[in-house]
Amino acid sequence: MAAMTQRVKWWGWGDPSRNVDLKPDFQDYLFEKLNVQDRERVSAHPLPEMPAANPEVAQSLGASSGDMDRLLHAAGKSYVDLVRIRKPRIELAPDAVSWPESDDDLRKIFSVAQRDGWAVVPFGGGTSVLRGVEPLSGSKKGVVTADLTGMNRILSIDKTSRTAHVQAGIFGPALEESLAKEGFELGHYPQSFEYSTLGGWIAARSAGQNSSGYGRIDDLVVSLRAVTPVGEIVTREVPSSASGPELQEVLVGSEGTLGIITDAVVRIHPRPGRMHYDSFLFRSFSEGIEVLRRLAQDGPVPIVARLSDEAETELSLKQAGADSKWGFKLLKLFGKGDYLSGGAHLLLGYDEPHSRSISDTARRFEALRIGKSAGEQWEKSRFGLPYFRDSLMDYGILVETLETATTWSKFERLYSAVRDAIRGAVPTALVMTHVSHIYPDGASLYFTFLCDAQDREIELWQRGKEAASRAILENGGTISHHHGVGVDHKDSLEKERGPLQVEMLRSLKKTLDPDGILNPEKLIP
Amino acid sequence: MAAMTQRVKWWGWGDPSRNVDLKPDFQDYLFEKLNVQDRERVSAHPLPEMPAANPEVAQSLGASSGDMDRLLHAAGKSYVDLVRIRKPRIELAPDAVSWPESDDDLRKIFSVAQRDGWAVVPFGGGTSVLRGVEPLSGSKKGVVTADLTGMNRILSIDKTSRTAHVQAGIFGPALEESLAKEGFELGHYPQSFEYSTLGGWIAARSAGQNSSGYGRIDDLVVSLRAVTPVGEIVTREVPSSASGPELQEVLVGSEGTLGIITDAVVRIHPRPGRMHYDSFLFRSFSEGIEVLRRLAQDGPVPIVARLSDEAETELSLKQAGADSKWGFKLLKLFGKGDYLSGGAHLLLGYDEPHSRSISDTARRFEALRIGKSAGEQWEKSRFGLPYFRDSLMDYGILVETLETATTWSKFERLYSAVRDAIRGAVPTALVMTHVSHIYPDGASLYFTFLCDAQDREIELWQRGKEAASRAILENGGTISHHHGVGVDHKDSLEKERGPLQVEMLRSLKKTLDPDGILNPEKLIP
Repeated sequence: MAAMTQRVKWWGWGDPSRNVDLKPDFQDYLFEKLNVQDRERVSAHPLPEMPAANPEVAQSLGASSGDMDRLLHAAGKSYVDLVRIRKPRIELAPDAVSWPESDDDLRKIFSVAQRDGWAVVPFGGGTSVLRGVEPLSGSKKGVVTADLTGMNRILSIDKTSRTAHVQAGIFGPALEESLAKEGFELGHYPQSFEYSTLGGWIAARSAGQNSSGYGRIDDLVVSLRAVTPVGEIVTREVPSSASGPELQEVLVGSEGTLGIITDAVVRIHPRPGRMHYDSFLFRSFSEGIEVLRRLAQDGPVPIVARLSDEAETELSLKQAGADSKWGFKLLKLFGKGDYLSGGAHLLLGYDEPHSRSISDTARRFEALRIGKSAGEQWEKSRFGLPYFRDSLMDYGILVETLETATTWSKFERLYSAVRDAIRGAVPTALVMTHVSHIYPDGASLYFTFLCDAQDREIELWQRGKEAASRAILENGGTISHHHGVGVDHKDSLEKERGPLQVEMLRSLKKTLDPDGILNPEKLIP
Repeated sequence: MAAMTQRVKWWGWGDPSRNVDLKPDFQDYLFEKLNVQDRERVSAHPLPEMPAANPEVAQSLGASSGDMDRLLHAAGKSYVDLVRIRKPRIELAPDAVSWPESDDDLRKIFSVAQRDGWAVVPFGGGTSVLRGVEPLSGSKKGVVTADLTGMNRILSIDKTSRTAHVQAGIFGPALEESLAKEGFELGHYPQSFEYSTLGGWIAARSAGQNSSGYGRIDDLVVSLRAVTPVGEIVTREVPSSASGPELQEVLVGSEGTLGIITDAVVRIHPRPGRMHYDSFLFRSFSEGIEVLRRLAQDGPVPIVARLSDEAETELSLKQAGADSKWGFKLLKLFGKGDYLSGGAHLLLGYDEPHSRSISDTARRFEALRIGKSAGEQWEKSRFGLPYFRDSLMDYGILVETLETATTWSKFERLYSAVRDAIRGAVPTALVMTHVSHIYPDGASLYFTFLCDAQDREIELWQRGKEAASRAILENGGTISHHHGVGVDHKDSLEKERGPLQVEMLRSLKKTLDPDGILNPEKLIP
C-alpha cells in the first residue's frame, strides 16, 4: 500500500503545471458582463494549515498521515470544494490515506475500521463535484480514505464478446490507451476523463461526452465486483437476464456507500477512425432542440451531440475570437448577424459520415452550417474547461455547473424554470445552458452560472444551487443526470424519490454495511 | 371488483375454441423420432375436483370464491402446471379471487390481508411458466389472487417524448391496438403476447420476439408506480438519471414479491410498415451464430433475429411440409440436400430494407437465401406454438422449454453443455435450440425438449430441468433470460447471485412487505 506521488493540483484542476490565461479581449467582454472591475488575479496558492489527524487511524492501518497525502484527499473538485481548500486553514481532511492494491487489502481495511471505529471513504480520481469524496466521519472516531488508483490493471479482453475486464482504479487515459493497443475503445469521456477512474464512473452513474452514441456507464457495465464489509458481490457476466431484480443497478450509483467496486466487465467497441464533426448555428435554442429530438428519435443518432443556448453560444463565440474571423465577418455582411448574437450552436459528431441527412434536417430550420472545424477544435480542448474555472476563481469569479434531464415534452418548461430560478436567486448571475446527452424520450440540460463572488462565495453559490434544485424537482427533472448525489443532493434525493425509496436504500445499507463504516453522510438521507 | 368472464382454457393455452391438429405426415415423423406408438389423443378435459376454500378470505374481501374463478387462477402455463391441472383433483387453488380496479382497491386488499393473515398473489395474464402465479400461502392462513386485468386503461400518450402512460393490467393486443390508433407501437411481443399483460412483462423482466431491435421490457420502461403494503413507489419519469442507485430496476423483475406494479410509462415508436423478413439456411448452427454476432456488433441490427440449430431446423422444415415443396425438391436436385438435414435456419426481420448488406454477410458463409416467405409465415403463426403444446400433451408427450443467455465467447460451450445435460438426464429426449435475442456481447439460448412422458411426466421433467439448470450455472449462463424466477428457479437464483444478493432481496422484502403477504414462496430464496 505505497503512497502515490502528487500528480494533481490540490487547489484546482489537474496538471499543476497547466495554467490557462484568459485572452484579453474575452476577459474584457466577460468582466463587463459580470460587472467585475479592476480585479487582480490571485496567482499564489500557499499550502493551507491542516486540521490535526487522529494518529490512531494511520497506526492501526499502516497508512499514511502525511500532510500532502491528506490534503490531496481532503476534498472533491466542486466550486465550493476549491473555495474551501484555498482558505488559509482547511477544516476537514482524512486522518489517514491508504492505497489498497487488492480486494484482500480492502477487506483488511474494513476489518480494522469495523474494529476500531473508522469511517472508510473510497477515492478514485477524487473529481466529485457533490462532496462525494469528502472525509466525513459520521458517528466514527476517524476517517481513512481508501485511494483505489493502485488497482488499475486490465485483467482481460474478450475480443469475441467485445468486453474488457478491468480493475476499477484505472484512470481514463490509461484505460483507453490499453484498449487502443488491441484496437478497441470504451468511449466513455466525461469532462473529468483525464483525472477520473472507471470505478468512480460506475459508482457515480456517470455519462460522458460520447454517451449519446455509446451509452452511459450504466449501459456499458456488463458485470461488476464489489467488496462490502460483510462479503463480496459479483454480478453475472451475461448480456441480459430475467433472474429477478437487477441488483447490479443498485451498486451502480451507490457512491461507495454500499460497497467498493473493485473491478468490472465493460462493453467495448472497435476503435473508430477520426470522428466526423459538423456544426450548425440555429436562430434559436428551441429550433436546435427540435432537431436534436428528431435525431434522437429517428436517427442517425449522433455519438456526440451538444447544443448551446443563446447565452452559451454568444460566450463561446467570443471565447473563440469569432469577431475577428473572416467567416463570421462575412456572415454579418450578408445580414446573418442575428445568428451570432441570439443564435444557438449545435455540434454533432458521428463515427461515420452522415452529413447529408443531417444537413437536410438542419436546412429545414434554416440553420447555418459551419462545418467541421468547430468540432475538431472542441475535441482538442474538450477536457480543458476545469482549468478555465481555476483561472476565473483566481479572479474571484464564482463558476457553478449543475445538470438534470427530462422528457422532451417537459424540456422547455424546465429550461426556463431553472434559468429563472438561478437569476431570481442571484440577480447578477450569467446563466448558460447546453444539452449534451439525448435519448429517444428526452435530454439532459447542463447549466453553468457565473457571477462576481465578492467574498460571498458560499452564500451566492448556495442561493443559486438551492433555487435551481427546487426548480428542477418542481418541473419534472431529475436532481442529477450524471454528477451524482454526494452530500449536496441528499435532501433532493429524498424529494425526488419519496420516503419509501429512501427506506429501501437504508435497508440495503444496513444489510451490506451494518457498522456504517462506508462513506458516511453521503447519498442516503 | 366485478368478476371477469372466462376467456382462456383452464387446461391449456388461450382461446378455448382453438385446437391445433398435428398434420398426419408430421405426426408420423415426430412420433417416430420420439418412439411413440399407437397413441390415442385425449380430447376431453373434465373439470377437476377443487380443494376446499377458506371461506373467510372471500368474505373478508368481498371477493369471489366461485370454482371457475378459482380454477382459472390456480396455476400458470408451464408444462407441469398443465399436467397438474389436468388431474381429476387439483391440490392448489386460491381461496378467493379479487379484481381490483384502482390503487385504492389494492390498498384495501393489502390492509385486510395484513389484518387477517392472507397471502396476496398478483395475477396478470397468468402465463408464468415458473409457478410465478401459483396460489402459495407461505405462513398465511389463506390466499387471495388479485387479478389486475381490470386496470387496463391507456392513461395518456406523449407524442413528443414518444411515451405512453398505461395501466399494468392491459393485455398485449389491447395495448397495441390503442397505440396503433395513434400511429405508435410498443413492439413488445413475447410468445404469450395475446394472453399476458404489461404489468406481468415488467414484473417478470420479459423480452419479446422483437426485442433484439426494440429492447427488452426493462429497456422500454421509463417509470412505474408500485403499490406496496407500506406505501407507494413512483419512479421519476426522466430519460436517465444519476441520482443514486436505480431502484426501478429492483421492481422490474420483482415478480409481485415487493409490490404490485399498477401503471408504467413506456417508450413507444412510430408504427413501422410491414416488416421486411429474409431467411437463410446455413450449413451449421455455428456459422449462423457467427453471422448473428456480426449483425449484433456491427449492424444492421435486426428487429427480429431467430436462428434454429440443426435439430430445430429439421423439425421446422418437416412441420412446414418442406419435403413436398418445389423449392426444396430443387435444392436436393442441385446437391444442396445437406442444408435441409443438418442445416440451420436463420430468420431476420427489419423495419426497413437492408437485404443487400445482410446477404453479403450470409453469402460469405455460403448460406442459402430462402427469401421472405418463411418470415411472413412465422409472423402469422408466431403466437401459436403453445396451442401445439396442448395437442402434444393430449398425446402424452412432454414439452418443456427453458432459456438462458451468455456472452458470445461462452456460447458454444454453454450450448453443448445444456444439450448434453438434458440428453444425459432424459435419454429419450429430443432437444432443440434457437437463439431469439442478440446483444453486442452475447445472445439468448432457448431450449425445447420433448419426449414420451409415459405417465412419468413430473419425474422426467424434473430430471431434464435440473440437469439443464446445473449446466447453465456451471457454464456461464443466467438461469433465466426472459421467463423469470417464480418457484422453479429460486434455488438457482441463489447459486447464480450468491448469498449477499439474496440478503439484499430479503432486506428489501422486509422493508416493503413486513408481514410477508405478497406472493409468498416466490423468487426470494
